Amino acid sequence: MICSIAIDIGNTRTHLGLISPDNRTCLKRSDFPSVQTQEHILAAVNDLAETCNREIKYITVSGGIRNAVIQSLETLRKSYENVHEFKYTQGLPVRFEYKDVSVLGSDRIAHALYGNFAFPGQSLIIIGSGTAITVDLLIKNEFRGGVILPGLNMQLNSLHISTDALPDVSLKGDFSLPGKSTEQCIRAGVINGTAWALEKIVNKYKELFPSEKFRIISSGGAWAQLEDVVSFRAEFIPDMTLLGVSLFPCYL
Amino acid sequence: MICSIAIDIGNTRTHLGLISPDNRTCLKRSDFPSVQTQEHILAAVNDLAETCNREIKYITVSGGIRNAVIQSLETLRKSYENVHEFKYTQGLPVRFEYKDVSVLGSDRIAHALYGNFAFPGQSLIIIGSGTAITVDLLIKNEFRGGVILPGLNMQLNSLHISTDALPDVSLKGDFSLPGKSTEQCIRAGVINGTAWALEKIVNKYKELFPSEKFRIISSGGAWAQLEDVVSFRAEFIPDMTLLGVSLFPCYL
Repeated sequence: MICSIAIDIGNTRTHLGLISPDNRTCLKRSDFPSVQTQEHILAAVNDLAETCNREIKYITVSGGIRNAVIQSLETLRKSYENVHEFKYTQGLPVRFEYKDVSVLGSDRIAHALYGNFAFPGQSLIIIGSGTAITVDLLIKNEFRGGVILPGLNMQLNSLHISTDALPDVSLKGDFSLPGKSTEQCIRAGVINGTAWALEKIVNKYKELFPSEKFRIISSGGAWAQLEDVVSFRAEFIPDMTLLGVSLFPCYL
Repeated sequence: MICSIAIDIGNTRTHLGLISPDNRTCLKRSDFPSVQTQEHILAAVNDLAETCNREIKYITVSGGIRNAVIQSLETLRKSYENVHEFKYTQGLPVRFEYKDVSVLGSDRIAHALYGNFAFPGQSLIIIGSGTAITVDLLIKNEFRGGVILPGLNMQLNSLHISTDALPDVSLKGDFSLPGKSTEQCIRAGVINGTAWALEKIVNKYKELFPSEKFRIISSGGAWAQLEDVVSFRAEFIPDMTLLGVSLFPCYL
């Protein structure tokens, strides 16, 4: 079994996945806080490589923290061959309609690659709900842009940090509205507000492209919280970012 | 003309208003950064008191920054009589259905007081759009709770501060969706997302209380940005927080 390893250095945590030879499944994954990337990256890759009892075909490193990506590439190249940096290149099978693709988030590129690979020629609304929430359009292999919103935890944290009086609220608990305590008011506003914003964004996309039959796919840890509140259904792809990252070397 | 002065020490800026004897109009206002409250508060009050060529009936100090409120009260009481701290008391003409009214934001109490005073016996949806956005329900003189969301600038700042890759985006510029640049994606997500969240929250309130005929009133600096995006109409009350604060001594 010739597997590959995909690495996504996110704003909060670094995720690693051992990806099946057909790039369809994440066979094993691990993660640690992104601030500890240099300490843990080699051991984490070694651990995944051991699980895979044959050869690691390639390792692809992606992420928004530039320095951590560069240092990780250096570290891994000392021990492994075929270590790639995930980034936009002209060889990718998706055309990106974007002002400056070099600053387009690698997670959004990875999602577009996955969408194009798994659902070729289809029109997709792709929701990524991590530290930030992205809702992007992929219409017949063309990335047509999207929106970025603060993620649920980012909103909760910012209300606490940027005000003197508001408490630090967790996602767990009553979020029905109208809230009858400050915790409930915050949860009711943030969870329902975000879900309803997504609902309207999805509807707006459908209005803008009335002839497309959209498939909605989603990924990210916060989706579990949002999916019961939104009125639309999305197919949840648990490791979409890592699967998208793992596709990169196919197009070199 | 016997005026009063209302002071609101907000998370970002401290606002002062010279309020007309009938508590309906803010005749003159001034503001400065809240971190400079102790430096500026007495001079700013003196300045407003000079504008009013008779007597200042009372001064009411409100705000979410507890220490700044207490210090301001001390400072002002050395020079003025009838300096009050705005806070919940049982004498207020609004009944608050809330878990712990002592931690309910003073801006939200002020808005409820203003709503009750200006539109007695009516059912109101009250939107305050400052550092945070609040959407509260006042049904026939009863405060029935609400929601709290991060304000527009708070969302823009948090996306920049909490991620390594996202830029610091201002509210000004194209916010149509889908965004074709990272700036536009953020603006499109934050402005439309927040407006649509508010729209759905307002609709949900109407659904929950189908027999009420709601009047929607709003205040705060960010409303100008939101009012063109939401589908509902709200009456904008420019100085609603200060007007609400100025009402407090009437109920002592």
